[in-house]
Amino acid sequence: MSAPTVDHRGPEFAGLARRVLEALKPVFGTAGPVVVYPSSGTGAWEAALVNTLSPGDRVLCFETGHFATLWRDMAESLGLEVEFVPGDWRHGASPEAAAQRLDADISHDIKAVCVVHNETSTGVTSRVPEIRAALDAAGHPALLLVDTVSSLGSIEYRHDDWGVDVTVTGSQKGLMLPPGLGFNAVSDKALTAARTSRLPKSYWEWGPILDANEAGFFPSTPATNLLYGLDEALLMLAEEGLEQVWARHARHAAATRAAVRGWGLEVLCADEREHSGSLTAVLLADGQDADAVRKIVLERFDMSLGTGLGRLAGKVFRIGHLGHFNDLTLAGTLAGVQMGLELAGIPVGRDGIAAALDHLRVD
Amino acid sequence: MSAPTVDHRGPEFAGLARRVLEALKPVFGTAGPVVVYPSSGTGAWEAALVNTLSPGDRVLCFETGHFATLWRDMAESLGLEVEFVPGDWRHGASPEAAAQRLDADISHDIKAVCVVHNETSTGVTSRVPEIRAALDAAGHPALLLVDTVSSLGSIEYRHDDWGVDVTVTGSQKGLMLPPGLGFNAVSDKALTAARTSRLPKSYWEWGPILDANEAGFFPSTPATNLLYGLDEALLMLAEEGLEQVWARHARHAAATRAAVRGWGLEVLCADEREHSGSLTAVLLADGQDADAVRKIVLERFDMSLGTGLGRLAGKVFRIGHLGHFNDLTLAGTLAGVQMGLELAGIPVGRDGIAAALDHLRVD
Amino acid sequence: MSAPTVDHRGPEFAGLARRVLEALKPVFGTAGPVVVYPSSGTGAWEAALVNTLSPGDRVLCFETGHFATLWRDMAESLGLEVEFVPGDWRHGASPEAAAQRLDADISHDIKAVCVVHNETSTGVTSRVPEIRAALDAAGHPALLLVDTVSSLGSIEYRHDDWGVDVTVTGSQKGLMLPPGLGFNAVSDKALTAARTSRLPKSYWEWGPILDANEAGFFPSTPATNLLYGLDEALLMLAEEGLEQVWARHARHAAATRAAVRGWGLEVLCADEREHSGSLTAVLLADGQDADAVRKIVLERFDMSLGTGLGRLAGKVFRIGHLGHFNDLTLAGTLAGVQMGLELAGIPVGRDGIAAALDHLRVD
Amino acid sequence: MSAPTVDHRGPEFAGLARRVLEALKPVFGTAGPVVVYPSSGTGAWEAALVNTLSPGDRVLCFETGHFATLWRDMAESLGLEVEFVPGDWRHGASPEAAAQRLDADISHDIKAVCVVHNETSTGVTSRVPEIRAALDAAGHPALLLVDTVSSLGSIEYRHDDWGVDVTVTGSQKGLMLPPGLGFNAVSDKALTAARTSRLPKSYWEWGPILDANEAGFFPSTPATNLLYGLDEALLMLAEEGLEQVWARHARHAAATRAAVRGWGLEVLCADEREHSGSLTAVLLADGQDADAVRKIVLERFDMSLGTGLGRLAGKVFRIGHLGHFNDLTLAGTLAGVQMGLELAGIPVGRDGIAAALDHLRVD
Repeated sequence: MSAPTVDHRGPEFAGLARRVLEALKPVFGTAGPVVVYPSSGTGAWEAALVNTLSPGDRVLCFETGHFATLWRDMAESLGLEVEFVPGDWRHGASPEAAAQRLDADISHDIKAVCVVHNETSTGVTSRVPEIRAALDAAGHPALLLVDTVSSLGSIEYRHDDWGVDVTVTGSQKGLMLPPGLGFNAVSDKALTAARTSRLPKSYWEWGPILDANEAGFFPSTPATNLLYGLDEALLMLAEEGLEQVWARHARHAAATRAAVRGWGLEVLCADEREHSGSLTAVLLADGQDADAVRKIVLERFDMSLGTGLGRLAGKVFRIGHLGHFNDLTLAGTLAGVQMGLELAGIPVGRDGIAAALDHLRVD
Repeated sequence: MSAPTVDHRGPEFAGLARRVLEALKPVFGTAGPVVVYPSSGTGAWEAALVNTLSPGDRVLCFETGHFATLWRDMAESLGLEVEFVPGDWRHGASPEAAAQRLDADISHDIKAVCVVHNETSTGVTSRVPEIRAALDAAGHPALLLVDTVSSLGSIEYRHDDWGVDVTVTGSQKGLMLPPGLGFNAVSDKALTAARTSRLPKSYWEWGPILDANEAGFFPSTPATNLLYGLDEALLMLAEEGLEQVWARHARHAAATRAAVRGWGLEVLCADEREHSGSLTAVLLADGQDADAVRKIVLERFDMSLGTGLGRLAGKVFRIGHLGHFNDLTLAGTLAGVQMGLELAGIPVGRDGIAAALDHLRVD
Repeated sequence: MSAPTVDHRGPEFAGLARRVLEALKPVFGTAGPVVVYPSSGTGAWEAALVNTLSPGDRVLCFETGHFATLWRDMAESLGLEVEFVPGDWRHGASPEAAAQRLDADISHDIKAVCVVHNETSTGVTSRVPEIRAALDAAGHPALLLVDTVSSLGSIEYRHDDWGVDVTVTGSQKGLMLPPGLGFNAVSDKALTAARTSRLPKSYWEWGPILDANEAGFFPSTPATNLLYGLDEALLMLAEEGLEQVWARHARHAAATRAAVRGWGLEVLCADEREHSGSLTAVLLADGQDADAVRKIVLERFDMSLGTGLGRLAGKVFRIGHLGHFNDLTLAGTLAGVQMGLELAGIPVGRDGIAAALDHLRVD
Repeated sequence: MSAPTVDHRGPEFAGLARRVLEALKPVFGTAGPVVVYPSSGTGAWEAALVNTLSPGDRVLCFETGHFATLWRDMAESLGLEVEFVPGDWRHGASPEAAAQRLDADISHDIKAVCVVHNETSTGVTSRVPEIRAALDAAGHPALLLVDTVSSLGSIEYRHDDWGVDVTVTGSQKGLMLPPGLGFNAVSDKALTAARTSRLPKSYWEWGPILDANEAGFFPSTPATNLLYGLDEALLMLAEEGLEQVWARHARHAAATRAAVRGWGLEVLCADEREHSGSLTAVLLADGQDADAVRKIVLERFDMSLGTGLGRLAGKVFRIGHLGHFNDLTLAGTLAGVQMGLELAGIPVGRDGIAAALDHLRVD
């Protein structure tokens, strides 16, 4: 085509594609391939399942929050049998529960363990290495599939070192792009599983994509503009340095928790080892209406706080601190929350933002 | 989230989504719903199949070119049985062959007829209304699924009037956006079929999307930026008027064919009723190398012509004339082709562009 | 020219130009013409002088700060005689001093009074209506020329009601554009003076510009892209409403002063009637280094505070709060200043930002 | 200021400013300084005059077209005495006439010679080196001031080698930016003249600007965004190479003249040594209406041709081929002109564009 859009079959685009596919690897912490789809992160969930599993396969999931529940639902829709470890939405996936289920599965019916690394609905980060350790301790061959939609590029994550088989993510959080790209980082073991997987697939099938990627192409039209944006975003991440990016998010998360405690409120995440670096969910007391706070903050300060999803509706609001975010943006965000809480009739005083600034100034 | 990307759960986005979903309908020529995916057009092919069909179902496809062949391959990958009407890649889907196959299918084993409206690899536009007539004449209940990736918004198309059940398209051609959105316009009959379809599905499933769309939302993260762009593109189409857009493309296509004939070359499309409004494939003589022409045009004039795909490799090049395109862009494009042909040692004289300008000036 | 830049002699541009020239008037508070130059605000200073005055003419200026001093220097360079009322850089132009000088000028040698409405170097806003009253009380025919570079579109200003003859401004502050446009709003009296003015002029001459503007054109190439931007900026101002814009700035200025006082520091502006709505200069104590604070804030928080200009070097830093600015941006800005002061060894405690938030929340 | 616009007093901007001011020099062909103004090219005309001349000084100008006449008018407005060598608007400044006037000026009353290098109204390029030779042959000390608004960065030009004292240009032609920047390249002799020049000046005064530029700053607010754009434009020019840019324009100009002759029409420029590389003016026969052609081309093909200015009104139209322009854009442009001429009832046949393509293909 001589049309003005980027020619995704031409040499210029192929150079970009190869560069991007290579530069993605260190962000996932892998030496293996990363598959890129024009899709949401939800599409990349589906890709992880249909490439590795067969109808009726058993998968182990953890009820860590709203998104873990949605992934469970998807697995069932696709014809898989899900063993769902119940949870209270304040903790990550339990390594102890994982160990128990895997030890009990002597016949190795469980083909995959699905973990949401950072639950966007709760601000809880699961301890993936400990889940891996549970698999290893049990000598269990199940694949480890991990959703990193709201952690990759924000919170420490290591696909290879942690022995993950498929890492799922999207473009719109830590990669600082608009939504529209889904990703699968894929281990050798996952590629082997793909050879015998029998769930029907075509669009999501890794094989033809990886083959075409060799030459810098894609079997179906790629989302060219987002790939150009990704090229720049990966450069920015590399310039700041991944460890620095993780540290920045951890620091902002700590300052945010200092503010929440300064307000006399509770952080939803109940385990000090599992605080999220990319967002903080704030749990209000009985009788307090989180959505009323959100409404006031939106109307008065034009800032959109995350709503409580699923069973947390009305009880929590969520403060995001990921992507392009510096100390003063965080200070402005926390100022908006503090004023909004007061305006909603929740007396929080002046200590919240003061504590956050003490943290940011000193740390 | 308080992050700077568009909040796709907020009221502002919901207003946009509802407006876009409504404004899409006239472009497809339908009063029914249009489903939008973050995906390529290929994803929308898969959506059309998995929502309506069940494992082992028989579908009737036509070998009209490269993309029809890819769609056939997809159907097979998903576990469908494909009856593939052979073709010479110079004609559209044959209404006569369709009639014959449908008449012969007394037991109604064929569950869907798949037609690529405008074959991007050949510049041939199938006569969809005549396929519909064949179905009707046979009294056959099969669904009619039509790919309009390179025709919608460029070439006359009428989902409802032509009795199409699922119309598939993408964002990157007639809708003048970057790639990244896939679409399904869906008839009542298709919705009914979806209720009993048994191909596994989750990401592509129409039901939850249509339910969420009622309130202006999506079950998984939408490609927000492309939806904002779509809002503007639909406004532009509406301002120019769909009939005017179709006429403009037809006029540019006629001028392009005048140039091809002025050069003493052959238009690949062999049926006057089936010339594409959005692109023209030019067939070279034996011993002439289309890729050599393309290479010269790219290097000397920085213009990327479409390559010959599949069995047409090296034999044709393709001139696109869709999207943002005016008379002078076309004239420049044809001038580049004319000079490139001469430089490649294919003597074409001066009559090609002259004939095209005569057409553009008078018509 | 068929080049792709905007054709500034074509009908499309003429429509834009007429619309912009009309929409500028209410922003200045005038029914008369506004002249637009491709220039900085400094160029518009020169335009005001060379269009109205003759070599050797006497003008009355006030030493309100750095920019008033620069304007004085310009007048002298152009061959005018300047009577410069001394000042302490903490007050606006003194109506009392003006009255005294004008009363004393029985022979009406003073041809123009020049006032900087909002001194960007000090954050002091002169009381222009009281200067007008002094002229009227003295029955003095001098022109009143007012610089509104950092006030127009931010702080209450009324060219006609206040009897101003030439209002000077630029594009880069309240009009929220990049720098590159200079403006003169011109009274009938100023136009009359222009007829006999003898300072040499060509580029700045109002007459040919006003003549060409009638048809939507300019005698020399206009800064087309900035005029397109101006069209949008004027629409934004009109949508919010000028009174609302003024109120927003006044509210942010008051919150900023609350913070400064909460830190135990001094606002440079010494008269409650003269606080600037668009910026606040903070005066440090002897021995404290304002530039050290600025350096820390830039390095640690990537925020650029205004430096102390001229005689204020090292003693003040300036906090801007104009243009696109909302409550949370201000809160972030003040948080950065508070942390920067502490880090620079100026102990300011927690009361500054707390006081600002109290103000923003309640007001 | 903490405002979001670029801080033009900060270290980042200073780095940009120094880089741009250095990179401008080779484009002018000078080792000396280049002064940049927020202004149109017309402003830079005024700067050249007021910095070097005194009231009543005599300057020698040439009536080469509309813009030369406007510059003459400006000189008179500023109080200079102009000797205006008459011309027919089809030739450049006459070296013979220059020699004659300079030889006759035994008392050296002429203080400056003003030449428009490329007359945008006629498409004629004056032979500046021959004017220089005339000055040298006469042993005349007058300054040589040259307008390169529509030639710099498009047509061969060498400030130092050609002994020019002030080169005037703007941002909107060969520098491929929006209008809004004016430039003066300045010789040592011009700087010396500036010390004794007595025309009043402040905004345009070179001295304070050159002083501030040393440190990367400007005495009044610079047009920051255009300077960022200039940084990129200068990189693009350097990448293509100035000689290559000149050759590209010359080649497009030759192809355009081939088209004009193929149409049986006349190029306005009457001297083969003086054809412009950046635009071509086409002279119609008596009874033919150039503005009717322009109107048709604008309405039918959305292309804006240059109008006949001043005494050429209605008799010529102008085809621009400068800045971002490739072979196919030129072909499209010429196709639009050819069709427009036919539609206007001026029968031009098919040989025009054919001749242009022959030229572009072979050369």
